Amino acid sequence: MGKLYVVGIGPGDYDDMTIRAGKILSRSDLIIGYHVYVELVKQWYPDKTFLTTPMTREAQRCRMALEAAEQGKTVSLVCSGDSGIYGMAALVLELRGEKRTPEVEIVPGLTAACSGGALLGAPLTHDFAVISLSDRLTPWETIEKRLTAAAEADLSIVLYNPASHGRPDHLRRACVILRRVLPGERLCAVVRNIGREGQDRRLCTLAQMQDLDVDMFCTVFIGNAAAKEIAGNLVTPRGYRDV
Amino acid sequence: MGKLYVVGIGPGDYDDMTIRAGKILSRSDLIIGYHVYVELVKQWYPDKTFLTTPMTREAQRCRMALEAAEQGKTVSLVCSGDSGIYGMAALVLELRGEKRTPEVEIVPGLTAACSGGALLGAPLTHDFAVISLSDRLTPWETIEKRLTAAAEADLSIVLYNPASHGRPDHLRRACVILRRVLPGERLCAVVRNIGREGQDRRLCTLAQMQDLDVDMFCTVFIGNAAAKEIAGNLVTPRGYRDV
Repeated sequence: MGKLYVVGIGPGDYDDMTIRAGKILSRSDLIIGYHVYVELVKQWYPDKTFLTTPMTREAQRCRMALEAAEQGKTVSLVCSGDSGIYGMAALVLELRGEKRTPEVEIVPGLTAACSGGALLGAPLTHDFAVISLSDRLTPWETIEKRLTAAAEADLSIVLYNPASHGRPDHLRRACVILRRVLPGERLCAVVRNIGREGQDRRLCTLAQMQDLDVDMFCTVFIGNAAAKEIAGNLVTPRGYRDV
Repeated sequence: MGKLYVVGIGPGDYDDMTIRAGKILSRSDLIIGYHVYVELVKQWYPDKTFLTTPMTREAQRCRMALEAAEQGKTVSLVCSGDSGIYGMAALVLELRGEKRTPEVEIVPGLTAACSGGALLGAPLTHDFAVISLSDRLTPWETIEKRLTAAAEADLSIVLYNPASHGRPDHLRRACVILRRVLPGERLCAVVRNIGREGQDRRLCTLAQMQDLDVDMFCTVFIGNAAAKEIAGNLVTPRGYRDV
């Protein structure tokens, strides 16, 4: 019997993958994914068989993976970060529907909230929201509403997909919305290429962030009211009474 | 020179740890943590030296770890899930302050939003909020405000620390608040002991969840408006136009 694993490979460094993900990839007959992530995995498992599809052909990619598993293969569909959070897991389960074959296992991975947070220090010690600025699947009005709600409730905020070629100004627009609620001095940070070549991090204020150049490889953190800089790191204090 | 690693070990199964976390633990001179998690790690690295402190002595634990690193040891302070999200990373950085010694590295791990989400299917395909129901460090009024804001903005919600001995009814109180905004039929789920003995998952409605018995080993998921059950899994559909 074939089986399809939907595998979150984490930010992009082999060591940031889970031990489980590594074991599954190493025993897969076929590894499928968006070409950028397949190129990463190829460096780690050069002898495997790989299949790629362009970014916008997610459903085609999932169908190929389901069909190969149905035909008896052990298949890994790889996603960057986590396989569920803005990942392919839902689409695979939707396309399989109520059939229950082939067997599907969702294998979690480090999402950018975790890996980017660690790179910055400890920005997510308390409650937070994860919001994507891509309006490809969500109307911009909904994104705007969520940003406002999260800021008003003093949640730390992690912004995924802060920009792309088609929408270079989404972060600036988000900052304008956030500044209706939050002060311009609010501490923020941007991480880029977590765990990959060119890894970079930058702390700044919300006012400064409005003018930063970001791309699809960036993840943005907005501190909550307690966020502060300690020795160059972005930290939301834990606030234990016995400190 | 010693170094302190603050290591997220994930939900509790060796395979759910990252490869990096495994390498760091295996070369540590000393592993420190809350006794429940130290017991897990002891099974994987029985020959290491371990130190534990009770749950409420977090600051003491962090100070012990910093001191041992200052004395030249390679030290791992272990946290369940991620080391940042409700973890010890912030407290370590606060206690070290502006000194910049000993060297500290935050090593991320799978948080329950990722590992529990994977166990349930794909509940976090779109934007979501992570909220702890523990009022040990956050006033209950703030928690209440965040629950309402997240529900009104149609965020999927992950509830950490839904109960403990001292506050057995927090999940019920949270459900009452959520039902002011959300319908009783809203799809929800509870996972327990992710990756450990007795692992369990259960899908239910928000109305049903109000009466469930939960404990500190549970993580609760509240679906957004699009959440549905597919072949027994909780799925927030991805909604690609090319499906």
